[in-house]
Amino acid sequence: MPLLVVGSVAIDNVETPQARRDNLLGGSATHFSYAASFFTEVQLVGVVGEDWPPEHTALFQSRGIDTSGLEVMAGGKTFRWTGRYEPNMNDRETLDIQLNVFGRFNPVLSEHYRRAPYVFLANGVPALQLKVLDQVPGCRLAVADTMELWIQTAHDDLKTLFQRIDGLVINDSEAKMLADTDNLVLAGHRVRAMGPKFVVIKKGEHGAMFFSEYETYVMPAFPTENVIDPTGAGDSFAGAMMGYLAENDNFEPETLKTAMAYGILVASFNVEGFGLERMQQTTRDDIEDRMTAYRKMLSF
Amino acid sequence: MPLLVVGSVAIDNVETPQARRDNLLGGSATHFSYAASFFTEVQLVGVVGEDWPPEHTALFQSRGIDTSGLEVMAGGKTFRWTGRYEPNMNDRETLDIQLNVFGRFNPVLSEHYRRAPYVFLANGVPALQLKVLDQVPGCRLAVADTMELWIQTAHDDLKTLFQRIDGLVINDSEAKMLADTDNLVLAGHRVRAMGPKFVVIKKGEHGAMFFSEYETYVMPAFPTENVIDPTGAGDSFAGAMMGYLAENDNFEPETLKTAMAYGILVASFNVEGFGLERMQQTTRDDIEDRMTAYRKMLSF
Repeated sequence: MPLLVVGSVAIDNVETPQARRDNLLGGSATHFSYAASFFTEVQLVGVVGEDWPPEHTALFQSRGIDTSGLEVMAGGKTFRWTGRYEPNMNDRETLDIQLNVFGRFNPVLSEHYRRAPYVFLANGVPALQLKVLDQVPGCRLAVADTMELWIQTAHDDLKTLFQRIDGLVINDSEAKMLADTDNLVLAGHRVRAMGPKFVVIKKGEHGAMFFSEYETYVMPAFPTENVIDPTGAGDSFAGAMMGYLAENDNFEPETLKTAMAYGILVASFNVEGFGLERMQQTTRDDIEDRMTAYRKMLSF
Repeated sequence: MPLLVVGSVAIDNVETPQARRDNLLGGSATHFSYAASFFTEVQLVGVVGEDWPPEHTALFQSRGIDTSGLEVMAGGKTFRWTGRYEPNMNDRETLDIQLNVFGRFNPVLSEHYRRAPYVFLANGVPALQLKVLDQVPGCRLAVADTMELWIQTAHDDLKTLFQRIDGLVINDSEAKMLADTDNLVLAGHRVRAMGPKFVVIKKGEHGAMFFSEYETYVMPAFPTENVIDPTGAGDSFAGAMMGYLAENDNFEPETLKTAMAYGILVASFNVEGFGLERMQQTTRDDIEDRMTAYRKMLSF
């Protein structure tokens, strides 16, 4: 089933303790779309500027990603982000951010896109996320991401959003901030009580946790010693998770759990290269091989 | 099969953001022994002072723990530790430490104890751990713990120790320090290359990782929102793990993995109360119930 994602498309410069790479294809919707494209048909909604290299669009299309919702805004420049990772490859510092056309992003969905059954609202201004939700009244599953900035500056809109989405995918520091506790289990329950039917807390190298009314569980990350660039790990996690749900067109508890596992595995590929480099060398078979190893790892 | 543990027995004062409790029965060998006693016969080697409350010895004995190796040193006081936990319940500050008789600890094992097939060297001066190893030449499985202090101040003894033990159980910060990397997967491989046949890295609320020549895996912690006092979590993990191995008298890969799971589960009980309080209300049936839930959590 088609999976619609609305979010940022960017050009990233990434510095790690080992290396620096400039002009990488990045952004939340980018990593999400690529990861989801292993599983289902993706409809990408985003905005870029006149400086956008057309080969990036071609890359999306080579993955079967529908880019008719990727607006090229005249007279503007693409969103640019420059960041540096600490030696722990988890904490990072934003060295430079130029919102450019993304600062004027106001997605208006085509009639076709408005019928998308699966929708992911990547991190963005909560008021905009709500405006997108208004345009997909018939969607079967709407899941959103957010970030600390919006928890601090747009709390009321976020609370409204939480009442209207089915699922929320956030990282551990965001969950702690939202729930005002350092205990992630408690945080998960508290955030779920704010509205979403389920909450996923991403813990980076420590995996992810799932909270619904009936279930609480934790799944570890797939152990890789080859962490090159964590950028987009959370977005590729969400992309694979949502992609698997859309592929199977259901979100029963058992499907959700398998989807979480795919999210974890695809994210483990994503971090093994700069930008999308490792992902571009990855096949669905590679993912299935890692799934076999992951299932074996968790059985005893 | 009998399981011998050599380590500290202490009186703890513990402060958390919620409460403070004084004069708790603590120490690495204490938490280890109690956890192991759910599974097998434990032989406890430690030292206490004249101020030692005899009811603590009675508690050990009520669990079938052999306390004939618990020396009461005349004219001395029991090791005392006072610590305060940060709101994250992971980082802690030592407010006061009085080694007392533990500073003169020089364990000489009885003939009976020297035949122990399973041996755990809880955190202590590496030179002393080596002296204990000299006394159990025929043991089937010797596993040790250590801490940052010894990595910094007794590195040569530690390296010798690593060559002589079968397994090493350390926490994440110790692994990073030993291996000089922030990547825990890489750290595990590097530490294993220093000698131990297997290495277990404890990650607190994030579970534990296992490294052997043929296997690398991660198991998540059992999610509990009821974290009251993390003191002794790592020791109770090791106690349950070793206890299960001794109970089954083998350390094949499959048994080791199940033992890791028991370690994780017993540690999850340990943190749900101050000192041993929650453990004293826990039965083997409670542990098995949690194991059923844990297996369910990890299957999909």
